[in-house]
Amino acid sequence: MTSFESRTSDYPIERIFLERWSPRALAGVPMDHETLMTIFEAARWAPSSYNSQPWRYIYAHRDTPAWAGLFNLLVEGNQGWARDASVLIVAISKTTMSPRGEEVPSYSHSFDAGSGWQNLALQATAMGWFAHGMVGFDMARAASELGIPDGYKVESAIALGKLGDKSKLPEHFQKMEQPNDRNPVSSFAFEGRFPAA
Amino acid sequence: MTSFESRTSDYPIERIFLERWSPRALAGVPMDHETLMTIFEAARWAPSSYNSQPWRYIYAHRDTPAWAGLFNLLVEGNQGWARDASVLIVAISKTTMSPRGEEVPSYSHSFDAGSGWQNLALQATAMGWFAHGMVGFDMARAASELGIPDGYKVESAIALGKLGDKSKLPEHFQKMEQPNDRNPVSSFAFEGRFPAA
Repeated sequence: MTSFESRTSDYPIERIFLERWSPRALAGVPMDHETLMTIFEAARWAPSSYNSQPWRYIYAHRDTPAWAGLFNLLVEGNQGWARDASVLIVAISKTTMSPRGEEVPSYSHSFDAGSGWQNLALQATAMGWFAHGMVGFDMARAASELGIPDGYKVESAIALGKLGDKSKLPEHFQKMEQPNDRNPVSSFAFEGRFPAA
Repeated sequence: MTSFESRTSDYPIERIFLERWSPRALAGVPMDHETLMTIFEAARWAPSSYNSQPWRYIYAHRDTPAWAGLFNLLVEGNQGWARDASVLIVAISKTTMSPRGEEVPSYSHSFDAGSGWQNLALQATAMGWFAHGMVGFDMARAASELGIPDGYKVESAIALGKLGDKSKLPEHFQKMEQPNDRNPVSSFAFEGRFPAA
Protein backbone atom coordinates (compact mmCIF):
# COMPACT_ATOMS: atom_id res chain seq x y z
CA MET A 1 0.00 0.00 0.00
CA THR A 2 0.96 3.62 -0.53
CA SER A 3 -0.03 6.64 1.57
CA PHE A 4 -0.39 10.36 1.01
CA GLU A 5 -2.13 12.63 3.54
CA SER A 6 -5.65 11.27 4.11
CA ARG A 7 -5.26 8.65 1.38
CA THR A 8 -4.03 5.08 1.68
CA SER A 9 -4.18 2.67 -1.23
CA ASP A 10 -4.94 -1.02 -0.75
CA TYR A 11 -2.25 -2.03 -3.26
CA PRO A 12 1.24 -0.54 -3.70
CA ILE A 13 0.71 1.99 -6.52
CA GLU A 14 2.98 4.81 -7.61
CA ARG A 15 2.67 7.65 -5.15
CA ILE A 16 1.82 10.26 -7.79
CA PHE A 17 -1.68 8.81 -8.24
CA LEU A 18 -2.45 9.62 -4.60
CA GLU A 19 -0.67 12.97 -4.68
CA ARG A 20 -2.94 14.14 -7.52
CA TRP A 21 -6.06 15.72 -6.05
CA SER A 22 -8.35 18.62 -6.87
CA PRO A 23 -7.96 21.52 -4.45
CA ARG A 24 -10.03 24.70 -4.55
CA ALA A 25 -7.74 26.83 -2.38
CA LEU A 26 -5.39 28.22 -5.01
CA ALA A 27 -2.67 30.84 -4.63
CA GLY A 28 -3.44 33.25 -7.49
CA VAL A 29 0.10 33.16 -8.82
CA PRO A 30 1.09 33.23 -12.49
CA MET A 31 2.33 30.07 -14.23
CA ASP A 32 5.22 30.50 -16.61
CA HIS A 33 4.44 29.53 -20.17
CA GLU A 34 7.09 26.79 -20.38
CA THR A 35 5.45 25.03 -17.42
CA LEU A 36 2.06 25.14 -19.14
CA MET A 37 3.53 23.78 -22.37
CA THR A 38 5.19 20.96 -20.39
CA ILE A 39 1.82 20.06 -18.87
CA PHE A 40 0.27 19.94 -22.36
CA GLU A 41 3.25 17.92 -23.60
CA ALA A 42 2.32 15.14 -21.19
CA ALA A 43 -1.22 15.09 -22.61
CA ARG A 44 0.32 14.81 -26.07
CA TRP A 45 1.63 11.30 -25.35
CA ALA A 46 -1.67 9.79 -24.20
CA PRO A 47 -3.08 6.81 -26.12
CA SER A 48 -6.03 7.16 -28.50
CA SER A 49 -7.75 4.95 -31.05
CA TYR A 50 -5.71 4.74 -34.23
CA ASN A 51 -3.46 7.39 -32.64
CA SER A 52 -6.17 9.91 -33.59
CA GLN A 53 -5.11 12.31 -30.77
CA PRO A 54 -8.56 13.90 -30.43
CA TRP A 55 -7.63 16.20 -27.50
CA ARG A 56 -7.75 19.96 -28.00
CA TYR A 57 -7.28 22.65 -25.35
CA ILE A 58 -8.10 26.33 -25.17
CA TYR A 59 -6.19 28.02 -22.37
CA ALA A 60 -5.84 31.39 -20.70
CA HIS A 61 -3.17 32.56 -18.26
CA ARG A 62 -4.43 34.72 -15.39
CA ASP A 63 -3.93 38.47 -15.89
CA THR A 64 -4.04 38.20 -19.67
CA PRO A 65 -6.71 39.36 -22.15
CA ALA A 66 -7.82 35.75 -22.78
CA TRP A 67 -8.69 35.06 -19.12
CA ALA A 68 -12.14 36.67 -18.95
CA GLY A 69 -13.42 34.69 -21.92
CA LEU A 70 -12.86 31.41 -20.07
CA PHE A 71 -13.52 32.60 -16.52
CA ASN A 72 -16.93 33.99 -17.45
CA LEU A 73 -18.07 30.53 -18.59
CA LEU A 74 -17.76 29.06 -15.11
CA VAL A 75 -20.77 28.73 -12.83
CA GLU A 76 -20.73 31.11 -9.88
CA GLY A 77 -19.67 28.40 -7.41
CA ASN A 78 -16.59 27.62 -9.45
CA GLN A 79 -15.78 31.29 -10.11
CA GLY A 80 -15.61 31.74 -6.32
CA TRP A 81 -12.42 29.70 -6.07
CA ALA A 82 -11.15 29.48 -9.67
CA ARG A 83 -10.44 33.23 -9.66
CA ASP A 84 -7.23 32.21 -7.88
CA ALA A 85 -6.21 29.72 -10.58
CA SER A 86 -3.06 30.35 -12.58
CA VAL A 87 -4.42 29.00 -15.86
CA LEU A 88 -7.91 28.08 -17.03
CA ILE A 89 -8.43 25.49 -19.74
CA VAL A 90 -11.38 24.19 -21.73
CA ALA A 91 -10.74 20.59 -22.82
CA ILE A 92 -12.32 19.54 -26.11
CA SER A 93 -12.36 16.39 -28.24
CA LYS A 94 -12.59 15.90 -31.99
CA THR A 95 -15.51 13.58 -32.66
CA THR A 96 -14.21 12.14 -35.91
CA MET A 97 -10.96 10.52 -36.99
CA SER A 98 -9.30 9.37 -40.22
CA PRO A 99 -7.76 5.96 -39.60
CA ARG A 100 -7.70 5.16 -43.33
CA GLY A 101 -7.87 8.61 -44.90
CA GLU A 102 -11.65 8.96 -44.86
CA GLU A 103 -13.20 10.92 -41.95
CA VAL A 104 -15.33 8.61 -39.76
CA PRO A 105 -16.97 9.00 -36.34
CA SER A 106 -14.66 8.18 -33.43
CA TYR A 107 -16.23 5.87 -30.86
CA SER A 108 -13.78 6.82 -28.12
CA HIS A 109 -13.05 10.54 -28.55
CA SER A 110 -14.23 11.44 -25.04
CA PHE A 111 -12.55 8.44 -23.44
CA ASP A 112 -9.32 9.24 -25.30
CA ALA A 113 -9.52 12.91 -24.32
CA GLY A 114 -9.90 11.72 -20.73
CA SER A 115 -6.59 9.90 -20.99
CA GLY A 116 -4.96 13.13 -22.19
CA TRP A 117 -6.51 15.01 -19.28
CA GLN A 118 -5.12 12.52 -16.79
CA ASN A 119 -1.58 12.83 -18.19
CA LEU A 120 -1.94 16.61 -17.94
CA ALA A 121 -3.04 16.39 -14.30
CA LEU A 122 -0.24 13.98 -13.37
CA GLN A 123 2.46 16.09 -15.04
CA ALA A 124 1.14 19.14 -13.16
CA THR A 125 1.33 17.13 -9.93
CA ALA A 126 4.89 16.01 -10.68
CA MET A 127 5.90 19.69 -10.96
CA GLY A 128 4.16 20.80 -7.75
CA TRP A 129 1.04 22.20 -9.40
CA PHE A 130 -2.59 21.10 -9.16
CA ALA A 131 -5.30 20.52 -11.75
CA HIS A 132 -9.00 20.66 -10.89
CA GLY A 133 -11.52 19.50 -13.49
CA MET A 134 -14.98 21.03 -13.66
CA VAL A 135 -18.21 20.30 -15.49
CA GLY A 136 -19.77 23.34 -13.81
CA PHE A 137 -19.50 25.75 -16.74
CA ASP A 138 -21.61 26.74 -19.72
CA MET A 139 -20.60 24.26 -22.43
CA ALA A 140 -22.88 25.73 -25.09
CA ARG A 141 -21.48 29.22 -24.53
CA ALA A 142 -17.96 27.77 -24.49
CA ALA A 143 -18.53 26.36 -27.96
CA SER A 144 -19.96 29.57 -29.41
CA GLU A 145 -17.77 32.14 -27.64
CA LEU A 146 -14.48 30.28 -28.03
CA GLY A 147 -15.08 29.49 -31.71
CA ILE A 148 -15.22 25.72 -31.30
CA PRO A 149 -16.38 24.30 -34.65
CA ASP A 150 -18.92 21.56 -35.32
CA GLY A 151 -17.36 18.15 -34.99
CA TYR A 152 -15.80 18.93 -31.62
CA LYS A 153 -17.24 18.19 -28.17
CA VAL A 154 -16.60 20.38 -25.13
CA GLU A 155 -15.49 17.93 -22.44
CA SER A 156 -14.38 19.74 -19.31
CA ALA A 157 -12.99 22.92 -17.83
CA ILE A 158 -9.75 22.72 -15.88
CA ALA A 159 -8.17 25.08 -13.34
CA LEU A 160 -4.40 24.85 -12.85
CA GLY A 161 -2.82 26.44 -9.83
CA LYS A 162 -0.56 26.38 -6.81
CA LEU A 163 -2.00 25.43 -3.45
CA GLY A 164 -3.26 28.47 -1.52
CA ASP A 165 -4.71 29.39 1.85
CA LYS A 166 -7.77 27.32 2.58
CA SER A 167 -9.09 29.78 5.19
CA LYS A 168 -9.97 32.13 2.33
CA LEU A 169 -12.48 29.65 0.85
CA PRO A 170 -16.20 29.80 1.60
CA GLU A 171 -16.92 27.65 4.67
CA HIS A 172 -18.62 24.74 2.84
CA PHE A 173 -15.59 24.42 0.55
CA GLN A 174 -13.14 24.57 3.49
CA LYS A 175 -14.66 21.36 4.89
CA MET A 176 -14.09 19.54 1.57
CA GLU A 177 -10.56 20.86 1.12
CA GLN A 178 -8.53 17.67 1.37
CA PRO A 179 -7.77 14.70 -0.89
CA ASN A 180 -11.01 12.71 -1.09
CA ASP A 181 -11.46 8.94 -0.81
CA ARG A 182 -12.49 6.26 -3.27
CA ASN A 183 -14.49 3.03 -3.43
CA PRO A 184 -12.34 -0.12 -3.28
CA VAL A 185 -11.22 -2.03 -6.37
CA SER A 186 -13.65 -4.85 -5.56
CA SER A 187 -16.54 -2.43 -6.16
CA PHE A 188 -15.60 -1.73 -9.77
CA ALA A 189 -13.45 -4.59 -11.16
CA PHE A 190 -15.20 -7.90 -11.83
CA GLU A 191 -13.93 -11.19 -13.17
CA GLY A 192 -15.62 -12.43 -16.36
CA ARG A 193 -18.99 -10.81 -15.92
CA PHE A 194 -20.78 -7.76 -14.57
CA PRO A 195 -22.33 -8.71 -11.20
CA ALA A 196 -26.10 -9.06 -11.01
CA ALA A 197 -27.74 -6.01 -9.42
CA MET B 1 13.01 17.39 -23.40
CA THR B 2 12.79 13.72 -22.52
CA SER B 3 13.61 10.72 -24.70
CA PHE B 4 12.59 7.07 -24.85
CA GLU B 5 13.40 4.86 -27.84
CA SER B 6 11.94 6.51 -30.97
CA ARG B 7 10.22 9.22 -28.92
CA THR B 8 11.53 12.64 -27.92
CA SER B 9 9.32 15.19 -26.21
CA ASP B 10 9.61 18.91 -26.92
CA TYR B 11 9.25 19.78 -23.21
CA PRO B 12 10.78 17.98 -20.21
CA ILE B 13 7.96 15.65 -19.11
CA GLU B 14 8.13 12.68 -16.77
CA ARG B 15 9.67 9.78 -18.61
CA ILE B 16 6.79 7.39 -17.87
CA PHE B 17 4.53 9.19 -20.37
CA LEU B 18 6.94 8.27 -23.17
CA GLU B 19 7.58 4.77 -21.83
CA ARG B 20 3.87 3.96 -22.08
CA TRP B 21 3.08 2.64 -25.53
CA SER B 22 0.81 0.00 -27.03
CA PRO B 23 2.71 -3.05 -28.29
CA ARG B 24 1.12 -6.00 -30.06
CA ALA B 25 3.99 -8.45 -29.58
CA LEU B 26 3.10 -9.93 -26.21
CA ALA B 27 4.73 -12.81 -24.36
CA GLY B 28 1.74 -14.99 -23.42
CA VAL B 29 2.74 -15.18 -19.76
CA PRO B 30 0.34 -15.17 -16.81
CA MET B 31 -0.03 -12.04 -14.63
CA ASP B 32 -0.32 -12.64 -10.92
CA HIS B 33 -3.54 -11.40 -9.41
CA GLU B 34 -1.90 -8.93 -7.01
CA THR B 35 -0.29 -7.18 -9.98
CA LEU B 36 -3.66 -6.87 -11.73
CA MET B 37 -5.28 -5.50 -8.57
CA THR B 38 -2.45 -2.96 -8.27
CA ILE B 39 -3.10 -1.82 -11.83
CA PHE B 40 -6.81 -1.37 -11.03
CA GLU B 41 -5.87 0.40 -7.79
CA ALA B 42 -4.21 3.15 -9.83
CA ALA B 43 -7.41 3.60 -11.84
CA ARG B 44 -9.28 3.91 -8.55
CA TRP B 45 -7.60 7.24 -7.75
CA ALA B 46 -8.45 8.98 -11.01
CA PRO B 47 -10.53 12.18 -10.87
CA SER B 48 -14.20 12.22 -11.89
CA SER B 49 -17.04 14.71 -11.66
CA TYR B 50 -18.40 14.89 -8.14
CA ASN B 51 -16.06 11.96 -7.40
CA SER B 52 -18.65 9.77 -9.12
CA GLN B 53 -16.00 7.14 -10.05
CA PRO B 54 -17.88 5.86 -13.12
CA TRP B 55 -15.19 3.37 -14.21
CA ARG B 56 -16.02 -0.34 -14.19
CA TYR B 57 -13.87 -3.19 -15.50
CA ILE B 58 -14.57 -6.78 -16.45
CA TYR B 59 -11.35 -8.79 -16.63
CA ALA B 60 -10.11 -12.26 -17.48
CA HIS B 61 -6.70 -13.80 -16.83
CA ARG B 62 -5.35 -15.98 -19.63
CA ASP B 63 -5.80 -19.73 -19.12
CA THR B 64 -8.91 -19.25 -16.98
CA PRO B 65 -12.58 -20.03 -17.75
CA ALA B 66 -13.38 -16.31 -18.08
CA TRP B 67 -10.87 -15.73 -20.90
CA ALA B 68 -12.90 -16.99 -23.88
CA GLY B 69 -15.85 -14.74 -23.05
CA LEU B 70 -13.71 -11.64 -23.52
CA PHE B 71 -11.35 -12.94 -26.22
CA ASN B 72 -14.22 -13.94 -28.50
CA LEU B 73 -15.48 -10.34 -28.56
CA LEU B 74 -12.33 -9.07 -30.29
CA VAL B 75 -12.21 -8.58 -34.05
CA GLU B 76 -10.03 -11.07 -35.86
CA GLY B 77 -7.16 -8.63 -36.34
CA ASN B 78 -6.96 -8.04 -32.61
CA GLN B 79 -7.37 -11.73 -31.76
CA GLY B 80 -4.26 -12.38 -33.86
CA TRP B 81 -1.99 -10.66 -31.33
CA ALA B 82 -4.14 -10.40 -28.18
CA ARG B 83 -4.09 -14.19 -27.80
CA ASP B 84 -0.67 -13.58 -26.20
CA ALA B 85 -2.02 -11.07 -23.67
CA SER B 86 -1.85 -11.90 -19.98
CA VAL B 87 -5.16 -10.26 -19.08
CA LEU B 88 -8.05 -8.95 -21.17
CA ILE B 89 -10.29 -6.18 -19.86
CA VAL B 90 -13.49 -4.51 -21.01
CA ALA B 91 -13.65 -0.94 -19.69
CA ILE B 92 -17.12 0.42 -18.98
CA SER B 93 -18.57 3.66 -17.60
CA LYS B 94 -21.68 4.35 -15.55
CA THR B 95 -23.69 6.97 -17.42
CA THR B 96 -25.42 8.45 -14.39
CA MET B 97 -24.25 9.82 -11.04
CA SER B 98 -25.78 10.95 -7.75
CA PRO B 99 -24.05 14.15 -6.69
CA ARG B 100 -26.94 15.15 -4.43
CA GLY B 101 -28.65 11.82 -3.80
CA GLU B 102 -30.84 11.81 -6.89
CA GLU B 103 -29.58 9.88 -9.96
CA VAL B 104 -28.83 12.26 -12.84
CA PRO B 105 -27.05 11.86 -16.19
CA SER B 106 -23.30 12.30 -16.00
CA TYR B 107 -21.92 14.62 -18.66
CA SER B 108 -18.38 13.30 -18.33
CA HIS B 109 -18.64 9.55 -17.68
CA SER B 110 -16.60 8.59 -20.76
CA PHE B 111 -14.04 11.35 -20.19
CA ASP B 112 -13.74 10.33 -16.53
CA ALA B 113 -13.40 6.64 -17.44
CA GLY B 114 -10.62 7.69 -19.79
CA SER B 115 -8.73 9.19 -16.87
CA GLY B 116 -9.06 5.88 -15.01
CA TRP B 117 -7.80 4.02 -18.06
CA GLN B 118 -4.73 6.24 -18.28
CA ASN B 119 -3.84 5.65 -14.62
CA LEU B 120 -4.21 1.93 -15.23
CA ALA B 121 -1.90 2.06 -18.27
CA LEU B 122 0.72 4.14 -16.45
CA GLN B 123 0.74 1.88 -13.39
CA ALA B 124 1.21 -1.13 -15.68
CA THR B 125 4.12 0.69 -17.34
CA ALA B 126 5.69 1.51 -13.98
CA MET B 127 5.69 -2.23 -13.17
CA GLY B 128 7.17 -3.34 -16.51
CA TRP B 129 3.87 -4.33 -18.14
CA PHE B 130 2.09 -2.91 -21.16
CA ALA B 131 -1.54 -1.95 -21.79
CA HIS B 132 -3.02 -1.78 -25.30
CA GLY B 133 -6.47 -0.24 -25.73
CA MET B 134 -8.77 -1.43 -28.51
CA VAL B 135 -12.05 -0.30 -30.01
CA GLY B 136 -11.92 -3.25 -32.40
CA PHE B 137 -14.33 -5.53 -30.58
CA ASP B 138 -18.07 -6.18 -30.58
CA MET B 139 -19.43 -3.66 -28.06
CA ALA B 140 -23.04 -4.78 -28.40
CA ARG B 141 -22.12 -8.41 -27.77
CA ALA B 142 -19.89 -7.30 -24.88
CA ALA B 143 -22.90 -5.67 -23.24
CA SER B 144 -25.21 -8.66 -23.69
CA GLU B 145 -22.76 -11.51 -23.09
CA LEU B 146 -20.97 -9.95 -20.11
CA GLY B 147 -24.22 -8.92 -18.39
CA ILE B 148 -23.59 -5.18 -18.56
CA PRO B 149 -26.83 -3.50 -17.47
CA ASP B 150 -28.60 -0.50 -18.98
CA GLY B 151 -27.09 2.72 -17.74
CA TYR B 152 -23.54 1.64 -18.52
CA LYS B 153 -21.54 2.33 -21.67
CA VAL B 154 -18.92 -0.05 -23.05
CA GLU B 155 -15.85 2.15 -23.61
CA SER B 156 -12.85 0.08 -24.64
CA ALA B 157 -11.16 -3.28 -24.55
CA ILE B 158 -7.68 -3.50 -23.07
CA ALA B 159 -4.95 -6.12 -23.39
CA LEU B 160 -2.33 -6.28 -20.63
CA GLY B 161 0.89 -8.17 -21.22
CA LYS B 162 4.64 -8.45 -21.16
CA LEU B 163 6.60 -7.55 -24.25
CA GLY B 164 7.12 -10.54 -26.54
CA ASP B 165 8.91 -11.49 -29.73
CA LYS B 166 7.93 -9.16 -32.56
CA SER B 167 9.03 -11.62 -35.27
CA LYS B 168 5.98 -13.73 -34.41
CA LEU B 169 3.56 -10.95 -35.45
CA PRO B 170 1.99 -10.80 -38.92
CA GLU B 171 4.26 -8.74 -41.18
CA HIS B 172 2.08 -5.59 -41.36
CA PHE B 173 2.02 -5.44 -37.55
CA GLN B 174 5.79 -5.97 -37.30
CA LYS B 175 6.36 -2.71 -39.19
CA MET B 176 4.18 -0.78 -36.69
CA GLU B 177 5.75 -2.41 -33.62
CA GLN B 178 7.44 0.56 -31.99
CA PRO B 179 6.33 3.55 -29.91
CA ASN B 180 4.48 5.86 -32.30
CA ASP B 181 4.83 9.64 -32.63
CA ARG B 182 2.48 12.52 -31.89
CA ASN B 183 1.50 15.93 -33.26
CA PRO B 184 3.18 18.85 -31.45
CA VAL B 185 1.52 20.79 -28.63
CA SER B 186 1.04 23.80 -30.93
CA SER B 187 -1.35 21.69 -33.03
CA PHE B 188 -3.79 21.08 -30.16
CA ALA B 189 -3.40 23.80 -27.48
CA PHE B 190 -4.64 27.28 -28.33
CA GLU B 191 -4.66 30.52 -26.36
CA GLY B 192 -8.08 32.04 -25.79
CA ARG B 193 -9.87 30.73 -28.84
CA PHE B 194 -10.09 27.81 -31.24
CA PRO B 195 -8.18 28.74 -34.41
CA ALA B 196 -10.20 29.45 -37.55
CA ALA B 197 -10.18 26.52 -39.97
